[in-house]
Amino acid sequence: MKLSVLVGERFKEKPSDCVVDSHAFMVRGGYIKAVANGIYSSYMPLRRITKKIENILREEMDRIDGQEVQFPVVMPASLWQESGRYDSIDNSLCRFKDRNGAPMVLGMTHEEAAVQLVREYGATYNRYPFMIYQIQTKFRDEARPRAGLIRVREFTMKDAYSFHTSQEDLERYYAECYKAYQRIFARAGIPETVVVQSDSGMMGGAVSHEYMLLTPIGEDSIAICSECDYRANMEAAESIIENERDAESAPLEAVHTPDAHTIEAVCEYLGSSPLKSVKAVVYQKNMDDSYVIVFLRGDLDVNETKLTNFLGENIHPAVITEESGIAAGFIGPVGLDAACKPLVLFDNSLKGTNNMVCGANKTDYHNKGLDMERDCPDAEYHDFAKILDGGICPKCGKHTITVNRGIEVGNIFQLGTKYTKTMDMTYTDENGEIHYPIMGCYGIGVGRLAASVCEAHHDDYGPIWPITIAPWQVELCCMKSTDEPTHAEADKLYDALKKAGVEVLYDDRKVSAGVMFSDADLLGVPIRVIVSPRNLKENVCEIVTRDKSVSKKVPADETVAAVKELIAELTAVYENAANAY
Amino acid sequence: MKLSVLVGERFKEKPSDCVVDSHAFMVRGGYIKAVANGIYSSYMPLRRITKKIENILREEMDRIDGQEVQFPVVMPASLWQESGRYDSIDNSLCRFKDRNGAPMVLGMTHEEAAVQLVREYGATYNRYPFMIYQIQTKFRDEARPRAGLIRVREFTMKDAYSFHTSQEDLERYYAECYKAYQRIFARAGIPETVVVQSDSGMMGGAVSHEYMLLTPIGEDSIAICSECDYRANMEAAESIIENERDAESAPLEAVHTPDAHTIEAVCEYLGSSPLKSVKAVVYQKNMDDSYVIVFLRGDLDVNETKLTNFLGENIHPAVITEESGIAAGFIGPVGLDAACKPLVLFDNSLKGTNNMVCGANKTDYHNKGLDMERDCPDAEYHDFAKILDGGICPKCGKHTITVNRGIEVGNIFQLGTKYTKTMDMTYTDENGEIHYPIMGCYGIGVGRLAASVCEAHHDDYGPIWPITIAPWQVELCCMKSTDEPTHAEADKLYDALKKAGVEVLYDDRKVSAGVMFSDADLLGVPIRVIVSPRNLKENVCEIVTRDKSVSKKVPADETVAAVKELIAELTAVYENAANAY
Repeated sequence: MKLSVLVGERFKEKPSDCVVDSHAFMVRGGYIKAVANGIYSSYMPLRRITKKIENILREEMDRIDGQEVQFPVVMPASLWQESGRYDSIDNSLCRFKDRNGAPMVLGMTHEEAAVQLVREYGATYNRYPFMIYQIQTKFRDEARPRAGLIRVREFTMKDAYSFHTSQEDLERYYAECYKAYQRIFARAGIPETVVVQSDSGMMGGAVSHEYMLLTPIGEDSIAICSECDYRANMEAAESIIENERDAESAPLEAVHTPDAHTIEAVCEYLGSSPLKSVKAVVYQKNMDDSYVIVFLRGDLDVNETKLTNFLGENIHPAVITEESGIAAGFIGPVGLDAACKPLVLFDNSLKGTNNMVCGANKTDYHNKGLDMERDCPDAEYHDFAKILDGGICPKCGKHTITVNRGIEVGNIFQLGTKYTKTMDMTYTDENGEIHYPIMGCYGIGVGRLAASVCEAHHDDYGPIWPITIAPWQVELCCMKSTDEPTHAEADKLYDALKKAGVEVLYDDRKVSAGVMFSDADLLGVPIRVIVSPRNLKENVCEIVTRDKSVSKKVPADETVAAVKELIAELTAVYENAANAY
Repeated sequence: MKLSVLVGERFKEKPSDCVVDSHAFMVRGGYIKAVANGIYSSYMPLRRITKKIENILREEMDRIDGQEVQFPVVMPASLWQESGRYDSIDNSLCRFKDRNGAPMVLGMTHEEAAVQLVREYGATYNRYPFMIYQIQTKFRDEARPRAGLIRVREFTMKDAYSFHTSQEDLERYYAECYKAYQRIFARAGIPETVVVQSDSGMMGGAVSHEYMLLTPIGEDSIAICSECDYRANMEAAESIIENERDAESAPLEAVHTPDAHTIEAVCEYLGSSPLKSVKAVVYQKNMDDSYVIVFLRGDLDVNETKLTNFLGENIHPAVITEESGIAAGFIGPVGLDAACKPLVLFDNSLKGTNNMVCGANKTDYHNKGLDMERDCPDAEYHDFAKILDGGICPKCGKHTITVNRGIEVGNIFQLGTKYTKTMDMTYTDENGEIHYPIMGCYGIGVGRLAASVCEAHHDDYGPIWPITIAPWQVELCCMKSTDEPTHAEADKLYDALKKAGVEVLYDDRKVSAGVMFSDADLLGVPIRVIVSPRNLKENVCEIVTRDKSVSKKVPADETVAAVKELIAELTAVYENAANAY
């Protein structure tokens, strides 16, 4: 490919709407163009990257006996009504009517379609286990698309679905897929990806893991132990608190705390500490708007995922009305007799505590000297708090938790029988008994993976693509293209490289070295071969890697062989990383 | 791949809703499953076929300097409003609103997206010509999906768009693409595909061609000359009529023809011939419901595409009201003074005719002795008629036209400046002048191509896939799998074939020969290798092709080499056919 005819423009200025590097480089380097909010077209360089990623995905899915299939983008609503998700998912599920008025959806994931495809096939036990996967366009009507390809509305995803006759078999296969994912990220150039436990959210099921690329621009928070191998999504990380109890409990006493609505204001007013305060957080259930009050220690925050999972239904921050009888800002566990009859929950962080400050359920009054054991003898305690940076590791018990930001580049779920039950997929076992198959599902977004690799591997001037997914392996730069012998030599080398099966982008434009190299930096091709009048005089070629780790001159007639050797070396780094799994 | 674990079921009974062979075989063979009307999921065998077709498409598009890009499936309505197609296309264009109420469409083709992607890049003349293409899911909300994958609502399509600075350059590139398409169909196994001139329809532009696979189940009619190379879509084929004129003209005379509303009835009543009758066909314009009457010879039919193109607007068959003043069934060109002031048009077939029978514009009366020159001196004549089987070839002038049915497997269009003008894409030429680039577009549906190949190449038992797109190259059949030495030999051969890079489907199931072979017929793998106790005793393997053209025994230890040779031979047939272009 000659750069002179490559469709797409490259430019210097960072677009004002690009807040992350991968987004800026992909716009500046002629990889993508926005079509609508969160919807992009790809130019050839990105399409070449995504095709390579897709090939890695195929190879690794085939390696664990996956069968590539294809589900439709447009599905009848009836399929999603069967599973119940047509009603349970918010308007990120795109719903519309076809020409005949039939309700349809755009696929944001394909559990329903997978079950529909194999419902009859999977009717007897001896056809299990099996796994089917596809690489297909999906649409998720995100409220807030952001960061270029990191969070979009339309995207290409590899989604895989496995079917089993026992939990043990699912776990065996899940472990295989767990490793396949590690291989995929290693081969795609981000072996540093970490695996974390996660909450399964709307997918249903119990055990699930997310593959996280740690980066400050990530949208997810991950708790990582610096001492052991504990890693968990914030939403799933257990919060462990060593509660302290003073030797003596003061008596419960109401004090006037005018206008002190917040923990901070009360602490300042009374000279107390958040660690000795009780925080009240109020929610309402989505279903009936009934109130839920969670009490927890003043320095902690509620983890809404844990609360939702405990309740088994969705919630939203409360609108506290006068009729509710709740004294907003002054809520406490003693004497809470609100008209709205709230459900009252206690976090583990309050268990056994004493001499605490809490609301007195009366405007402008707080209680001092709360002793949970003495004053709230019937309280039950559960884990509703977010894990803290510097908190206790649930696995090794040390104060070694750090909270990090990350991009979720993949996820795997043990779905259980959620979809097979609702959609009535059954099989007959050896004894003629009927069971629901157990499912797993496994997803990776192709565009997000490309953008994540770019986030992980770039410098100030552009992406540094790993050779395994780079748009081209080699960029051939002809310096001083106006010099006839140099141009002829570069042309010859271009042909020789192509003939040797090397993917080469040839910059034969009559432009300055500055333009040529800044464009090359934006395109991020890992190996650069430079033909110039000076090199020609010395009868050498310069070979430089995009990451500057290699920079050498080789005799002109050994260039092709040297390039092929370097390609093999660079590739081996990623393949070896993958083979460690 | 072992057949014993291939997801999907094969069965004997033809499903009642399958009216064409490819549909029946694809359902019976475990290739597809319907998800909704005109929407299918694909199992692995079809996905393997479509991936091979996609690779052929990529190779041929790259060969003519195409750059693979990707456009989104979901696009903002504003993009389609720019081109005017948001309003001009009927409800086959799927329109919906996103979560913010913004109107969106599902892409049924991507001219708008192509222009949007390159509008800035193509601002100067020296960046032309260029071609971009994608292989992507499309949705067209067809009123009547039919025939399995032949006419669906959701499909994968290769669509390509070229941009030029002159009509000459477009024509040069169009000719290249014309050949690339011939190569594609040859490589995909249907070199018999014919190219016909076509009407450009909603795509705009003047010159266009369709690639037609002739088959009785096709939805399109094609006029083909048996003497010269003339081929045209019925919609585009010029109708040439040698009008006969009697030496003497009888006088115009009204006759009573009670209840004779049709040409047939009038001819029977008066003893006249359709060839000496004038037929009147009445339409209304979609825009304002105003009436249009077309007069043509009694044995001919109106080609509505020609009429629409002549009028420059869409029409529908008329509802003839009493207020219109039209005497339905008795309409004629003389004395036609209807209250609705219809637009009156004459087909070439009436030019110079005399002694014709026509309606008298009065219920139950016709005129005899119509002489067009004498009685309708102001009539202008145009081509509005459908070409006839046995009609005159517009190219060689002989009565050698046959009308055939065909499936459109591809199309190419010279779009001109329709999209660049409406979407304001311009470039500056050498002299600083501004112009609109000229476009071409080129489409092939992947699933329809697979189904068409199946229509062209099957027997009573299943598809006979060309080796270039077959799901596997070889099916290895282990007869009497219960016999341990036979099974061991087949296992060994399976490993050896895989190691040799052969794509092999291995049927090691413990089933009867009947089941094994009927499944193999449905899967249509071109080469079958049979290991059996008898063959084992003779120390041979049987190699048989699906089309029965090859059937031989080879020494067991030469099987792999013989298979590889046969693969090369079978492949060469299609590659050679392609290389003829």
